[in-house]
Amino acid sequence: MQTNKTFFLFFVFVVLLVFLFLFGAHAQVKVERWNRFEISLKGPVTGNPFTENHFSAIFSNNSKRVSVDGFYDGEGNYLIRFMPMELGKWNYITVSNIAALNHRSGLFTCVAPNNANHGMIRVADTYHFRYEDGKPYYPFGTTAYAWIHQGPELEEATLTTLKSSAFNKIRMCILPKYYTYVTNEPLFYPYEKGDGKNRWNFKRFNPAFFRHLEKRIDDLNALGIEADLIIFHPYDKGHWGFDSMGKENDLLYIKYLAARLSAFRNVWWSMANEFDYIKSKPRAVWDDYAAAVVGHDPYRHLCSIHNGSVYYDNWKPYFTHVSIQNGAPVEDFGRAGLLRDVYFKPVIYDEVCYEGNLPQRWGRLTGQEMTAAVWQGIIAGTYVTHGESIKGNGDTIFWAKGGILKGESPARIAFLRTLLENGPGPLHLADNWKDNQTAQTDSTYYLIYLGKPKQKEWMFSLPKKGGPPVGTKYKVDLIDTWKMSVTPINQVFETSKADGYRIYDKNHSLVSLPDDSYLAFRIHLIK
Amino acid sequence: MQTNKTFFLFFVFVVLLVFLFLFGAHAQVKVERWNRFEISLKGPVTGNPFTENHFSAIFSNNSKRVSVDGFYDGEGNYLIRFMPMELGKWNYITVSNIAALNHRSGLFTCVAPNNANHGMIRVADTYHFRYEDGKPYYPFGTTAYAWIHQGPELEEATLTTLKSSAFNKIRMCILPKYYTYVTNEPLFYPYEKGDGKNRWNFKRFNPAFFRHLEKRIDDLNALGIEADLIIFHPYDKGHWGFDSMGKENDLLYIKYLAARLSAFRNVWWSMANEFDYIKSKPRAVWDDYAAAVVGHDPYRHLCSIHNGSVYYDNWKPYFTHVSIQNGAPVEDFGRAGLLRDVYFKPVIYDEVCYEGNLPQRWGRLTGQEMTAAVWQGIIAGTYVTHGESIKGNGDTIFWAKGGILKGESPARIAFLRTLLENGPGPLHLADNWKDNQTAQTDSTYYLIYLGKPKQKEWMFSLPKKGGPPVGTKYKVDLIDTWKMSVTPINQVFETSKADGYRIYDKNHSLVSLPDDSYLAFRIHLIK
Repeated sequence: MQTNKTFFLFFVFVVLLVFLFLFGAHAQVKVERWNRFEISLKGPVTGNPFTENHFSAIFSNNSKRVSVDGFYDGEGNYLIRFMPMELGKWNYITVSNIAALNHRSGLFTCVAPNNANHGMIRVADTYHFRYEDGKPYYPFGTTAYAWIHQGPELEEATLTTLKSSAFNKIRMCILPKYYTYVTNEPLFYPYEKGDGKNRWNFKRFNPAFFRHLEKRIDDLNALGIEADLIIFHPYDKGHWGFDSMGKENDLLYIKYLAARLSAFRNVWWSMANEFDYIKSKPRAVWDDYAAAVVGHDPYRHLCSIHNGSVYYDNWKPYFTHVSIQNGAPVEDFGRAGLLRDVYFKPVIYDEVCYEGNLPQRWGRLTGQEMTAAVWQGIIAGTYVTHGESIKGNGDTIFWAKGGILKGESPARIAFLRTLLENGPGPLHLADNWKDNQTAQTDSTYYLIYLGKPKQKEWMFSLPKKGGPPVGTKYKVDLIDTWKMSVTPINQVFETSKADGYRIYDKNHSLVSLPDDSYLAFRIHLIK
Repeated sequence: MQTNKTFFLFFVFVVLLVFLFLFGAHAQVKVERWNRFEISLKGPVTGNPFTENHFSAIFSNNSKRVSVDGFYDGEGNYLIRFMPMELGKWNYITVSNIAALNHRSGLFTCVAPNNANHGMIRVADTYHFRYEDGKPYYPFGTTAYAWIHQGPELEEATLTTLKSSAFNKIRMCILPKYYTYVTNEPLFYPYEKGDGKNRWNFKRFNPAFFRHLEKRIDDLNALGIEADLIIFHPYDKGHWGFDSMGKENDLLYIKYLAARLSAFRNVWWSMANEFDYIKSKPRAVWDDYAAAVVGHDPYRHLCSIHNGSVYYDNWKPYFTHVSIQNGAPVEDFGRAGLLRDVYFKPVIYDEVCYEGNLPQRWGRLTGQEMTAAVWQGIIAGTYVTHGESIKGNGDTIFWAKGGILKGESPARIAFLRTLLENGPGPLHLADNWKDNQTAQTDSTYYLIYLGKPKQKEWMFSLPKKGGPPVGTKYKVDLIDTWKMSVTPINQVFETSKADGYRIYDKNHSLVSLPDDSYLAFRIHLIK
């Protein structure tokens, strides 16, 4: 009877395996931390599934419970997306007014991310940013407002361009843009067509539009680029009417966006571009809209509002950082930091005019001016976004449609990004309000920017404020921010006792400088 | 019986007169609009009348009811002060927990003010100020922190100096100041002495201190000068301990101040000087303190908070305007307006370093630099406060103790004040963010400031933005802001069609300039 017994034990073993497979299967689903877990269920197609059917889920692990909105993706598909923030087992249960979508549960395991996945970007040290895994993030953004509405060929060209650039953030409109240099119809519209009287049905989204947007956000993510998504903009003015859908429809759009996109880790919310130029939306409504974004986003992505001529109240709590349009603060020394003093949040000068050749004054910076603007922002402990408005022969303007970058500044901005990332941390003016050229992380690392003015010689000199003790030794590199060269100065500098508000090299030795503009010095402690 | 009848009629007439005198007397009390009406009653001296006895009054006319706190002035005197804001009859009734102070009523008539009384200063047109009677007020302030704590001789000298100056606002500390260059004891202390253990009794004020303060506020008022009263400051650090009395005593002090001073029309509240240097008071407490000031002040005097190195949240609703310490925004073109864009309130750069000869960098501006700083503020539609730190032979430094002004800038600031007051209204940059030199009221009046750089020639040129139509004719005066001269240019300028972003004279004629710094142009429409 040995065989029977063996067979019986084998049988029990197989049954156990089957049970394990059936009921343990979900726990075997693995999702990287900060990646997306998606629930997809079939539900009704009748009525208006976008507005009539509620669908959400509660995700929980041992320490957190997160309520996440689902959304209707068309063709009877109901989706919920979740970005797990913590490692380990998660389970969920759905909640819906539709039986087929209600009370469905499951579980998955959140595993460590791959090397290219550092999580969402968060504000760090009041004025700066870091990935969630602690890696510093210095925003070096560019601008291509309508790039996702240009069709596959141009969109792929844009991605190729971005891949070879150093930009790690892009300002882009969700809704199609109608403006000088961008007057084409998009491949996808965000809404279904309306009946005879109404051009669009603002209660029925077009999922294809959003799936395309999502693909592009993922394409950017694969390149390590943050998508600074502009939710509303004024570049419509009756052409489609997406700028004046009314408050109820605007809020429906925000809710749908947040349900679809919050689980994309590289999403930033920009409430609007040039909010004050959207004449259909009174100033006070932006509080409601920003509150809606924050309320529907379980992860609290970075969120800002971008002005035209008049700033919004950037101190309000919805806004994680300040997104300024104004070229003036980065046009000369001593300005960029003045706004940083105000808000106690990171300041990104997200539009400071563009490198280009347009007749409009916002579109005709030289490459030198665009590059210097980024430097002015960086040494003041703020950040500056690039844009290019170079009109060539029949090709596209990158700022408008994307395509190929032709300007001289992107390479210099890449050079600055490398400098900053090779340094020990983010910068601030060492002697704020008094010395507008000398940035430091602390007394171990300085970056001094001379800007356009040339000078024949340079004397080693640091502010006493935040400065080193007597006898501290430094190496200095001469940097040509335009030629992108780093030339070590063959000398050790050693600090003497502070003289008034400055600290000098003990020999007061002078360094001869080449006859060039846009020089800088990198000063680092000899350990 | 003719005589008897006559006598009877005469008797009735006399009785009526007596009645009219007895019961109508109070209505015959006349108080100028925005002057003070004072109720003085005798009450108990026992216990602690400062904290135990509540005393207030309701003032009303046909349209307003105003509740006003009274205060104990020592020696059994209980006072209530009221500033009537509207013409006509007012009545009042007192409220107290003390029978002798309770339910006392009376009336008076508010009559038209004299020619020198224009009422309180209010914010006007978002960024500017006006007296309550509509007269424009451009703040040209100075600074004498401890001038009221120097004894009669020096205090009278300060008033004489101020009388011959053009300053119409003064920043001054209520509490005595202990700091470099000001280390004397004051004549009056704000509190009674304490018992052996405690140096002061923070529950018992010294009315003589406050009566002296009030006299000085009235002295300033007689000169047309606003008293920008600094409620707290850090210049004590244990010397008297008035900077660290604890929250309960701080709030008691605020309530007492407001009860005594709110009816003085030339009072402004400055919550603190260099609030962030008062180490005993955490940042969050300033909200409570500012709310207390606003809550106890029935007239809503101007109220601000002044920073050291770190700004307060000037957007908060207690603050009617922004009072900035920072010299950098007025050191060069294109800066002062950057903060004005943020707050949607008037901005006064209330400390921008001082004209002086001290070793400290905050105390060694030249007269030219101090004057240029004021101009930089004015053309950007902001305001700048003067200060003088000139140390002579044994005399006082005006910034610290008052005394005699010796600097070169006050006369130039007076010249600018006259220019502004002779103009049609407050200024703003005509083409904000793009042209940092050209201020306008509207297209009828411009003030263009060249600052320190010299130029050989000047071409008539206005921004297209906010500019005039073709064929508009202007007269131009060349202004030397340092020599204080106004020289009409003997030419009529006539605008041609805008060329890009600028409007030029139709002949593009050039004006030769003298070899001087600090020139300006006043451009006014020929009607």
